[in-house]
Amino acid sequence: MNDTDIYELLDKVSKQEMSIDDAVLKLRKEPFEDMGYAKIDTHRGIRQGYAEVIYGEGKSAEQIVGICDKMLQVEEKRILITRLSKEKADIVGESFQLEYNELGRIGLIGKKPKCDGIGKIVIAVAGTSDIPVAEEAVFTAQALGSEVYKLYDVGVAGIHRLFSHVDDIMSATVIIAIAGMEGALASVVAGLANCPVIAVPTSVGYGASFGGLSALLSMLNSCGSGVSVVNIDNGFGAAYQANMINHIGER
Amino acid sequence: MNDTDIYELLDKVSKQEMSIDDAVLKLRKEPFEDMGYAKIDTHRGIRQGYAEVIYGEGKSAEQIVGICDKMLQVEEKRILITRLSKEKADIVGESFQLEYNELGRIGLIGKKPKCDGIGKIVIAVAGTSDIPVAEEAVFTAQALGSEVYKLYDVGVAGIHRLFSHVDDIMSATVIIAIAGMEGALASVVAGLANCPVIAVPTSVGYGASFGGLSALLSMLNSCGSGVSVVNIDNGFGAAYQANMINHIGER
Amino acid sequence: MNDTDIYELLDKVSKQEMSIDDAVLKLRKEPFEDMGYAKIDTHRGIRQGYAEVIYGEGKSAEQIVGICDKMLQVEEKRILITRLSKEKADIVGESFQLEYNELGRIGLIGKKPKCDGIGKIVIAVAGTSDIPVAEEAVFTAQALGSEVYKLYDVGVAGIHRLFSHVDDIMSATVIIAIAGMEGALASVVAGLANCPVIAVPTSVGYGASFGGLSALLSMLNSCGSGVSVVNIDNGFGAAYQANMINHIGER
Amino acid sequence: MNDTDIYELLDKVSKQEMSIDDAVLKLRKEPFEDMGYAKIDTHRGIRQGYAEVIYGEGKSAEQIVGICDKMLQVEEKRILITRLSKEKADIVGESFQLEYNELGRIGLIGKKPKCDGIGKIVIAVAGTSDIPVAEEAVFTAQALGSEVYKLYDVGVAGIHRLFSHVDDIMSATVIIAIAGMEGALASVVAGLANCPVIAVPTSVGYGASFGGLSALLSMLNSCGSGVSVVNIDNGFGAAYQANMINHIGER
Amino acid sequence: MNDTDIYELLDKVSKQEMSIDDAVLKLRKEPFEDMGYAKIDTHRGIRQGYAEVIYGEGKSAEQIVGICDKMLQVEEKRILITRLSKEKADIVGESFQLEYNELGRIGLIGKKPKCDGIGKIVIAVAGTSDIPVAEEAVFTAQALGSEVYKLYDVGVAGIHRLFSHVDDIMSATVIIAIAGMEGALASVVAGLANCPVIAVPTSVGYGASFGGLSALLSMLNSCGSGVSVVNIDNGFGAAYQANMINHIGER
Amino acid sequence: MNDTDIYELLDKVSKQEMSIDDAVLKLRKEPFEDMGYAKIDTHRGIRQGYAEVIYGEGKSAEQIVGICDKMLQVEEKRILITRLSKEKADIVGESFQLEYNELGRIGLIGKKPKCDGIGKIVIAVAGTSDIPVAEEAVFTAQALGSEVYKLYDVGVAGIHRLFSHVDDIMSATVIIAIAGMEGALASVVAGLANCPVIAVPTSVGYGASFGGLSALLSMLNSCGSGVSVVNIDNGFGAAYQANMINHIGER
Amino acid sequence: MNDTDIYELLDKVSKQEMSIDDAVLKLRKEPFEDMGYAKIDTHRGIRQGYAEVIYGEGKSAEQIVGICDKMLQVEEKRILITRLSKEKADIVGESFQLEYNELGRIGLIGKKPKCDGIGKIVIAVAGTSDIPVAEEAVFTAQALGSEVYKLYDVGVAGIHRLFSHVDDIMSATVIIAIAGMEGALASVVAGLANCPVIAVPTSVGYGASFGGLSALLSMLNSCGSGVSVVNIDNGFGAAYQANMINHIGER
Amino acid sequence: MNDTDIYELLDKVSKQEMSIDDAVLKLRKEPFEDMGYAKIDTHRGIRQGYAEVIYGEGKSAEQIVGICDKMLQVEEKRILITRLSKEKADIVGESFQLEYNELGRIGLIGKKPKCDGIGKIVIAVAGTSDIPVAEEAVFTAQALGSEVYKLYDVGVAGIHRLFSHVDDIMSATVIIAIAGMEGALASVVAGLANCPVIAVPTSVGYGASFGGLSALLSMLNSCGSGVSVVNIDNGFGAAYQANMINHIGER
Repeated sequence: MNDTDIYELLDKVSKQEMSIDDAVLKLRKEPFEDMGYAKIDTHRGIRQGYAEVIYGEGKSAEQIVGICDKMLQVEEKRILITRLSKEKADIVGESFQLEYNELGRIGLIGKKPKCDGIGKIVIAVAGTSDIPVAEEAVFTAQALGSEVYKLYDVGVAGIHRLFSHVDDIMSATVIIAIAGMEGALASVVAGLANCPVIAVPTSVGYGASFGGLSALLSMLNSCGSGVSVVNIDNGFGAAYQANMINHIGER
Repeated sequence: MNDTDIYELLDKVSKQEMSIDDAVLKLRKEPFEDMGYAKIDTHRGIRQGYAEVIYGEGKSAEQIVGICDKMLQVEEKRILITRLSKEKADIVGESFQLEYNELGRIGLIGKKPKCDGIGKIVIAVAGTSDIPVAEEAVFTAQALGSEVYKLYDVGVAGIHRLFSHVDDIMSATVIIAIAGMEGALASVVAGLANCPVIAVPTSVGYGASFGGLSALLSMLNSCGSGVSVVNIDNGFGAAYQANMINHIGER
Repeated sequence: MNDTDIYELLDKVSKQEMSIDDAVLKLRKEPFEDMGYAKIDTHRGIRQGYAEVIYGEGKSAEQIVGICDKMLQVEEKRILITRLSKEKADIVGESFQLEYNELGRIGLIGKKPKCDGIGKIVIAVAGTSDIPVAEEAVFTAQALGSEVYKLYDVGVAGIHRLFSHVDDIMSATVIIAIAGMEGALASVVAGLANCPVIAVPTSVGYGASFGGLSALLSMLNSCGSGVSVVNIDNGFGAAYQANMINHIGER
Repeated sequence: MNDTDIYELLDKVSKQEMSIDDAVLKLRKEPFEDMGYAKIDTHRGIRQGYAEVIYGEGKSAEQIVGICDKMLQVEEKRILITRLSKEKADIVGESFQLEYNELGRIGLIGKKPKCDGIGKIVIAVAGTSDIPVAEEAVFTAQALGSEVYKLYDVGVAGIHRLFSHVDDIMSATVIIAIAGMEGALASVVAGLANCPVIAVPTSVGYGASFGGLSALLSMLNSCGSGVSVVNIDNGFGAAYQANMINHIGER
Repeated sequence: MNDTDIYELLDKVSKQEMSIDDAVLKLRKEPFEDMGYAKIDTHRGIRQGYAEVIYGEGKSAEQIVGICDKMLQVEEKRILITRLSKEKADIVGESFQLEYNELGRIGLIGKKPKCDGIGKIVIAVAGTSDIPVAEEAVFTAQALGSEVYKLYDVGVAGIHRLFSHVDDIMSATVIIAIAGMEGALASVVAGLANCPVIAVPTSVGYGASFGGLSALLSMLNSCGSGVSVVNIDNGFGAAYQANMINHIGER
Repeated sequence: MNDTDIYELLDKVSKQEMSIDDAVLKLRKEPFEDMGYAKIDTHRGIRQGYAEVIYGEGKSAEQIVGICDKMLQVEEKRILITRLSKEKADIVGESFQLEYNELGRIGLIGKKPKCDGIGKIVIAVAGTSDIPVAEEAVFTAQALGSEVYKLYDVGVAGIHRLFSHVDDIMSATVIIAIAGMEGALASVVAGLANCPVIAVPTSVGYGASFGGLSALLSMLNSCGSGVSVVNIDNGFGAAYQANMINHIGER
Repeated sequence: MNDTDIYELLDKVSKQEMSIDDAVLKLRKEPFEDMGYAKIDTHRGIRQGYAEVIYGEGKSAEQIVGICDKMLQVEEKRILITRLSKEKADIVGESFQLEYNELGRIGLIGKKPKCDGIGKIVIAVAGTSDIPVAEEAVFTAQALGSEVYKLYDVGVAGIHRLFSHVDDIMSATVIIAIAGMEGALASVVAGLANCPVIAVPTSVGYGASFGGLSALLSMLNSCGSGVSVVNIDNGFGAAYQANMINHIGER
Repeated sequence: MNDTDIYELLDKVSKQEMSIDDAVLKLRKEPFEDMGYAKIDTHRGIRQGYAEVIYGEGKSAEQIVGICDKMLQVEEKRILITRLSKEKADIVGESFQLEYNELGRIGLIGKKPKCDGIGKIVIAVAGTSDIPVAEEAVFTAQALGSEVYKLYDVGVAGIHRLFSHVDDIMSATVIIAIAGMEGALASVVAGLANCPVIAVPTSVGYGASFGGLSALLSMLNSCGSGVSVVNIDNGFGAAYQANMINHIGER
């Protein structure tokens, strides 16, 4: 229930088109009625036009279908499902119209919205092994309404490749820098760009990469200004925040 | 905001006594405003009769005096100040009646209450170097109204000393086990006792004790049932919970 | 052999209804007779009415059946088996009347006792992925004789859901807060509640959750008073201590 | 070196106006020389109107004065100096007009600009011990031209204090959440807000806080969407990025 | 080639029963003849009567058979093979007379020697899950010529079981204490015993046991005197050293 | 495109044998033409005569074939593929002439070059379990044009074996020391040698070797001068640098 | 409480000489009371003739004097005080005849005993910075009655120095190997010796030595057989166990 | 002991010129005695003409003077003293002609040699705070006879500064890359250079830099080929190896 809905309800009450009792009932009928939870959530729904998000890991395909069923009854138009394996996607796809990205292990029920942000999100990716994380980010950003520009395979070991895209980097509204191993990409990109950089360490590497710890620490210690960091392999989280930034001031 | 409140609001809207815009605003702000933090706090203050607690670390003596002044205006009868150095205690003691325990670096403004818990808290301490943490626990428990029985220097290296107090251990309502180094005391005590054991790892030790990490992990992995753990050197926290347990059911 | 049994035996001896030799024999016939082990254990058995506990991990179904056989010969009425896989449970269930909870991987031989504690244990759980740990806790608490109130899916990301249950939280005798990822639930619950909170970090998460380390550290550093912590995923341990607290003073 | 430049070079070679050796040399050196670092920098300087930043740690007051002298010759109007001790600030203040914040250990040469961002930055701070980090963030954001709204002492242990400011949180353009210990503030704030949250773990705490590691991991694992994290105690970095976000699209 | 062999060779040379050339040849014919390696090794072989040891992990059954073949040609009478899986053992057993312990994943080619040490090695084991490590230790000690006394399932959670064996502990020449989880057994045993205790942390446990790290740190920080520690799960290493101690002074 | 190529191109331009437009086009036609990337790379190709390197992990056999196809079109004569499983090698081998080393999981398209370095690279290896890493190093060094001398199974536990090769060690131009477990080999070798030692920690070991961390730290702390370290199991990296050293000054 | 004791108790109950309640109490307390801690201690004191040990860290000089006073009343002839600063030693020395070693920060009240062990303890020390730990070990071993042979400055970086003492190493009964940094000394010594090696990691080093962690892990992973490890800088602990080994079988 | 020696020994035995016992002893001691440590050392001294190195940390000025005195008697012409504080340097300077670099805390007794290496060592340094480590490296390299080219303040945050020196980087024989924080400099330099890069992580940074751990891991995981790493802050070690490389093949 968004502000408009509340307004309409109150308008009806004001015009005696709806009884007070019915209005109380309707206001309470939100999932967490005794706390007025829905207002917050609806507020969210309205303003953002965002898709609801389900973290697919550790949920069975059946559970996911069940949750989606309930969500769609209350008119949630888009549902983004992350960490969704191919197997589960196949089952979910039998019940709903699902756009699925296998590399990024992510799917969307409902249609991707038109891109309407301030500018574009550049997603810079160090190596080919980081692509699954990158695809999760790309898909998420698009599902939330942002234009995305992909810069794949621009790791610092062949820094000229990154530099051949210096114009793209400079034209970004927000950049997502995705890298495993030593994670130096975030610092180099931040040194070139004039916009916020959200760094995503990946678990790509071996030995002393310790499952992404090396890249994580590297990014947290970035000497470049304007860098913040999300969890290892969290392409979704980076894109979610990047999209927020790309829609800043847009209430 | 309960149902009645909502009803009244709608009633006012219905009667045009309140504008729709004002009602929308009020409904949106409600979930958290309505939580009534004051209510919770009051509830707390009344029910518990506990002392308010100030964490003295990183606050100047002057700041502490200022906070206490404000608290005492609203009739807080007892204020427990932890991590209070001797120097600060001297200054605080000039403004208030302060009972101070230098070893435990802890002080109480106001008088200790009568002991009124279910039973007694046994505080078992491995070595003499752990005594500062133990004193913090003892002082806290007494300031909150629990009877305390001290078992000092009962580390497992001389396990007979611990066993000579088996009656005390068996008669406890709740036990606080304080140990540094390998922290084995918690497991041994839990093997003897029939009551909850709250384990406090201390930073006592050197080398591979890694500032209390060894004792912390040891206690978390205790094979004895009924053991839970608080932060390293957190004598206060253990006593606070132990006192809660000693007053269970007493609302 | 509990106090009552010992009392009766001594009474018979006193009345010459049992020969001293028979009494010596009976007292000695406990599993660790040379140490008088049974007295401790029996003492335990009596007062607590607790089930004996077997840690099923790393034991074969056959070993478990063997241990249960021996235990039941000496009149242990209830046996709780934790970390029991479905496969092993099926085998154990062929020999004994076993109540089994697959999600929590836990089973009970014998009937659950009547709930007879001081009040009720509220088990607050952050996300759906934490449910297996929660189920272990719920089953354990019930098997030991405590009433349980479940609050599932009340993670801090949607904090209104937690707040819609503020009354349940406030009416708890002891709370078990179960959360993975950042483990913030324990602190928030402790800020609302007036009773001991036992925090269970779970291994739910990825990347920098480092198998539950993040939640563990978070809970140990809780700024809320009255929080203690058990091992990662140790739903059993939390429930065991919570049940002890719920029966405090009840010898 | 763009196509035209290459054409001209080749033209000269073709006309024997340039030796082949010189041309080889020039072609070899070009990719980096041509990058035109000055151009980037100027671009930066122009667009941002930001203050230049000096990291004061490990530089003597004399070195800082020297660097500022040089910067001001090339018309840098504002210089922000972080990690600047009181002693050094006094010396720097003798040479330049310095606005200094002792708590935040940060100073500004030149006048703070008018606030001209999209909206305001809310800086939510868990405890009083986190204030130095918060002051660094506040001062930085203001020095870069953002309006700041301070929410101090809103840690989750007394969550009602945070909730009494829900309107402020909801009206933010971007939020900086600063907390030590268990760092739960970031997750709770993210659960309430609809804007990007930049989390700053602080080194406040003891024992298992491990110098801020606990809060850092907690924030990285935040189950709230829209959270990214900067280094421990890095109030400056958070404010720098927050200000960027607050000026998005403003080239 | 042991001292006796060298002596005999020299004796023959001295008596002209062997030509100098033949003697040079024989002395050189050791595997690392240019370094005189054999003398060291032989010295070892003689004095100790020990078996040669092969670390089976990461070697194929074929490689193991090959190595054994070569060893037995140079008269190695016993070969101990650790970390030997059942599958490999079956293959090795086709070529040699192999005594194999499946639990301990260890085998011996050749017959176990008579026990001839100073006293006996007591192997105290905390839980049933630690038994594989214990079996490796038992088998190793026996294969090297030491008498072993097993104390299984004497973890500190049921400390009376350990105490019922206090006489065994006191009569030991050297004790191996094997425990996972919190590893407290080593400290308790050291507090009771008057002989060297070699502690073996095991990887038994979950969560914050971190693969044996908890037990390892615990044992390294043991407040009991006379405790030293070997690598996690290194039952072989503990038994090897224990056997050395049990044969001290016996050159 | 190397210096000679550029020279020739310019020469043709100078002699009007090639139009300026064609030359511009050719110079631009490099993969990252707008940055002049090729010059760097070509520069590399020429001077070094090195093979191009593909990191095979996380790439499908098809992707590898595709990359190789493209590379060979632009006249890359040798392609080294690391972390190449047997399965993938079989597929790659169908399309190209592939020399494959299964132990080292590494393959070379094209023929190994003649050895032409300053001297030879000695590869000292502690144990048989370290051989896969060693084989990667050996193969890499040979593929890049260095003579290799293998010293296998010279761990410090049998230090005489290492010493029997002291002459080989002393005659090395550069040494690669490969060891897991405690990684002491690097220090001992550095104490004997007069040349750079590149240490490769391996993940060989168990328990407190923590996946190679023990050997890594050991090597970083080597008290021997002239030791540097690469990532755990990074035989390729060590050989790549060793080969560079073996060709120093050879531009 | 043995059978006879139980018989007597029952006899008294039977004769009404003891009340049933008293008998129940006695039977309940028995398992631990009966342990007779005094017996153990006495046993210990008698058998060992060892010095009692006080850990001086964190105890004031006055406390130490007090403890010694009490000990000497009950005829403890020698008291070893470890981690004793020069300042405290001066004060303790005023009350007792104290032999003090400033480097090792260790003192002995009473006279060192005659050396009476099986053989001698060789103490091999890597570098001059490790000498304080070594001196603690030397002093301890001598105070407990063992002959000591010192091998200082025999680190593996100059391995010839170690090898020039190969006779001393081979003639040892037990060896203590003390090293910081990479801790390789233990492995090398174990490869040469035929006796137990007790390794002492020291906190000597910087950077990635992490306060001794590097040496500790290195020693735990020693590929040499017969090595066990004590805590970082624990010269006392190593010597205590070495002395035990040097007196094996000597009850 | 070579074949001739063995022959002679046997000859003497054969002629009864040597007793069998003496021969056995000699043969047993031979492998290590024969190593001829003196020979190695001399070899070293002669070939290298390098300065002897003293690690000044933890040695008193007096001890250092003593060691130097002894060294100079045996004609060591140059002595390099690392980690030498100003205070100690002043004292050492009274006894010897000492060239001292205060920033690098390093001094040289004797004159710096002429530079005679293959080429030059480029020392690239990320920030001004890293300069002490850089100065140690510069001084060391010069004291050992290498020409050094300094590139200070070329961190990746302002990557154009680094790129303006691309010629210097390309002309290096070996590069030392020194950086704290995220340590990305090493990877970027390696991407540009064609020579070995020795990376030195520094302890510069705060929070999640964890005393240099972040930079260390980053450098170990460098995706650039040809990078190896030394200990945190080990400018000396890097320069020592760089100088070796710069003198390769020069025996």
